Amino acid sequence: MINLQLKDYSINLAKAGEALSHFLAGNQYAKTAVLVDKNTRQHCLPLLGGALGPDCFIIEIPPGEQHKTLQTCQTVWAEMLRGGLDRHSLLINLGGGVIGDLGGFCAATYMRGIDFVQVPTTLLSMADSSIGGKVGVDFQFVKNIIGVFQNPRAVFIDTTFLNTLPLHETRSGFAEIFKHGLIADASLWGRLQKIQDLRQVEWMQFLPPSLAVKKRIVEEDPHEKGIRKALNFGHTIGHAVESFSLQNDRPLLHGEAVALGIVCESFLSYKMAGLPTESLAAITAFAHRFYPPCLFDKEDFPAIMALMKKDKKNKAGHIHCSLIPAIGQVLVDRECGETQIAESLAYYLGSFA
Amino acid sequence: MINLQLKDYSINLAKAGEALSHFLAGNQYAKTAVLVDKNTRQHCLPLLGGALGPDCFIIEIPPGEQHKTLQTCQTVWAEMLRGGLDRHSLLINLGGGVIGDLGGFCAATYMRGIDFVQVPTTLLSMADSSIGGKVGVDFQFVKNIIGVFQNPRAVFIDTTFLNTLPLHETRSGFAEIFKHGLIADASLWGRLQKIQDLRQVEWMQFLPPSLAVKKRIVEEDPHEKGIRKALNFGHTIGHAVESFSLQNDRPLLHGEAVALGIVCESFLSYKMAGLPTESLAAITAFAHRFYPPCLFDKEDFPAIMALMKKDKKNKAGHIHCSLIPAIGQVLVDRECGETQIAESLAYYLGSFA
Repeated sequence: MINLQLKDYSINLAKAGEALSHFLAGNQYAKTAVLVDKNTRQHCLPLLGGALGPDCFIIEIPPGEQHKTLQTCQTVWAEMLRGGLDRHSLLINLGGGVIGDLGGFCAATYMRGIDFVQVPTTLLSMADSSIGGKVGVDFQFVKNIIGVFQNPRAVFIDTTFLNTLPLHETRSGFAEIFKHGLIADASLWGRLQKIQDLRQVEWMQFLPPSLAVKKRIVEEDPHEKGIRKALNFGHTIGHAVESFSLQNDRPLLHGEAVALGIVCESFLSYKMAGLPTESLAAITAFAHRFYPPCLFDKEDFPAIMALMKKDKKNKAGHIHCSLIPAIGQVLVDRECGETQIAESLAYYLGSFA
Repeated sequence: MINLQLKDYSINLAKAGEALSHFLAGNQYAKTAVLVDKNTRQHCLPLLGGALGPDCFIIEIPPGEQHKTLQTCQTVWAEMLRGGLDRHSLLINLGGGVIGDLGGFCAATYMRGIDFVQVPTTLLSMADSSIGGKVGVDFQFVKNIIGVFQNPRAVFIDTTFLNTLPLHETRSGFAEIFKHGLIADASLWGRLQKIQDLRQVEWMQFLPPSLAVKKRIVEEDPHEKGIRKALNFGHTIGHAVESFSLQNDRPLLHGEAVALGIVCESFLSYKMAGLPTESLAAITAFAHRFYPPCLFDKEDFPAIMALMKKDKKNKAGHIHCSLIPAIGQVLVDRECGETQIAESLAYYLGSFA
C-alpha cells in the first residue's frame, strides 16, 4: 500500500474496500451515502465488498459529462435531504470525474459543507481530479464554471477498477499523466515513451510519480494564484474543444480533448517559449500513437475561440496559457493572441496530413 | 466613521458611497457588478452617488425570500458570464439578507470564488447576515441548506439606507440585536429596554455593540463547531416557523420568526436551563411590545416539527437548541424533546391571552 500524505488528507493506493472499511471504522459518521452512476453501481460498487455497511444508502445519477449540471446537483441534494444526511454525515463519491466533481460540490455546499471521500474509478480521476480540491459543475456549456475549492477527507485509489473500463476511458486519463511528465518530470516522460499499448500498462508504475507532480504543485498553490496554473497546460484549448464538442452532440472525453490541447499548446510553446522543434515533433507523434484525430475544421475556429474567451484563466478578456519551454519545465500566464491560437489549431489539423 | 476589524475583512460604519469609492480606488478590479432587487435599485442605488463608476453593470433579481433559490442563482451566474466577470472581478451585494446571502453564494462559487462586498440595506442584514461569512440559498423550503462559509472582502454599513424601510423590516432586524443582548451582553439588553418606538431609534447607538457580540463569537468559531451555535438562539424554532410560513404563502420576515423563536426558546431555557421566571416574563413582554402575534395553531405543530427535524444543527435526528441560563449567558447543543418544543409553542400562543 502506498500512502501520499497531503496537508489535510491522504491518498491511499490500495484495495479500496479494505481501505474504506478502515476509514469508516476510524470515523463515527451519523450516516453515509454513496454517489454512483449506472455504470459504477453495476461494475464498481460490488468490488467494495461489504465495506460500506448495510446502512449506507445509494444515490444514483445518470452517467456522462452532459449530466454534470446544477440540475443533477438538485437531484443529489434532494436525495441527501430525503436520506436524512446531517452535518456529521459522509458522502462517498464512487466514480469518474463527473461523480467526483459533482459529488464533491454537492457535499461542499450541503449544510455549508459535509465530509466527502473520493473513490475514483477511472484513470482520469485517479490521475487528476481526485487530488487538488477542485469540485464543481458545468453551466451553460462552460466547464467547471460553478464550484469551490474543498479537499476531500481522503482519496482511495484502487487500480482494480481500471479493469472495468473501455480503452477510450483509459486513453482519456492517460493525457493527464502525459501532461504531468511534460510540465514537471522529464524522467517520467522518458519512461512513458516505452508504452505501446494502453491496454497493457501496469498503472501502479506511473500513477505515484504522476500524483507526486500534482501534489507538489497544488500544495504550493492551492487556490491557483500562480504555479498551479501549470496544470492547465493543454487545457485552455482542450477545454474549449471539449465544450465545443459537447455543444455539438459529439462529446469528446476530457482527456481526449486535453491530448489535442497539449499538441496545440506545445505548438504555442514552440512558437513563443522556445520549445525545440524536435520536442514538438516528439510530443505530436506520442499523442498520435494513442489518440485518433478529432474532427473539426476551420469554420469551427470562431466558435472554439468564443468558448476560450470564457475561460476562468483569462484576465480582462485576454487568453492566457501555460507553456513549456522544454520538456519538464513550465511557464504560466502567457498571453496568447487569437492568430497564434488559430495557427496552433491549424497545426493540429495539419499534423495528420 | 467606525471600523470593526475582523481577521480578513473589515466592517465600515460610514457613508457607503464614500467608503465604497475609497475601496474601489484601492483595489484594481477587472470588472465590477452590483446585485440589486427592484427595491434597492430604486431606493438604495441612487444613494451611492457615482461611487460605482460608469462601467459597473447591474444585475437585478426579484425581491423576497421566496426567490432565494438556485433558480435565481442561475440567473445571476448567467448575468455574470454574460457581463464577462472573470476571477479578478468584484460583485457588490446591495440589499437585505436575500441579496447578501444569495449574492455571496453566487460570488463564492463563480469560477470557484471571486471577491464580493456586502452593502446591507436592512437592519437585519446590518445586524446579522453581513457578518460571519455564511452565504447560501434555500432549497425545498429548507432555509440556507445549500451554501458555504466565505467572508466578503468588506462590509459597508450605512444607516441612511434604513430611512428607506417600512416598519416591519426594522422590526425584523431588531430581533437579532435583541438576541445579541440576550446571549452575550446584559448591558446592551438593559439599554434596549428604553426603546418604545422602533421608528425613532438612533441605530448607531446599538449596531456597534451588537456587531461586537457577533464578531467575538464568529471569530472564535468561524465554522460553527461550538460556541457559534449560540447565535442560533431563537433560530431552531424560528427557522421552522419561517419555513412553515413560507410554505403556506403567508411569509413571515426572518426577524419576526426569530422573535417568536426567542420567546419559545426562552421558555425552554426556563424549563431546562434555569432561566428565572421573571426574565422569561420580561423577554416575553419585550417581544410583545414590538411584534404582533404570529398566527398558527396546534394543528400546525406537527408540520413545524417536521421542518425542525431538517435543521442543520441536528445531530442524528435529534433537535438541538441554544439556551440561556440567564440574560447575557448562553449554552449550546442542548437536546430538546418534541414534547418540550410543543409546550414552548403552546406557551407562545398562550402568552397573548
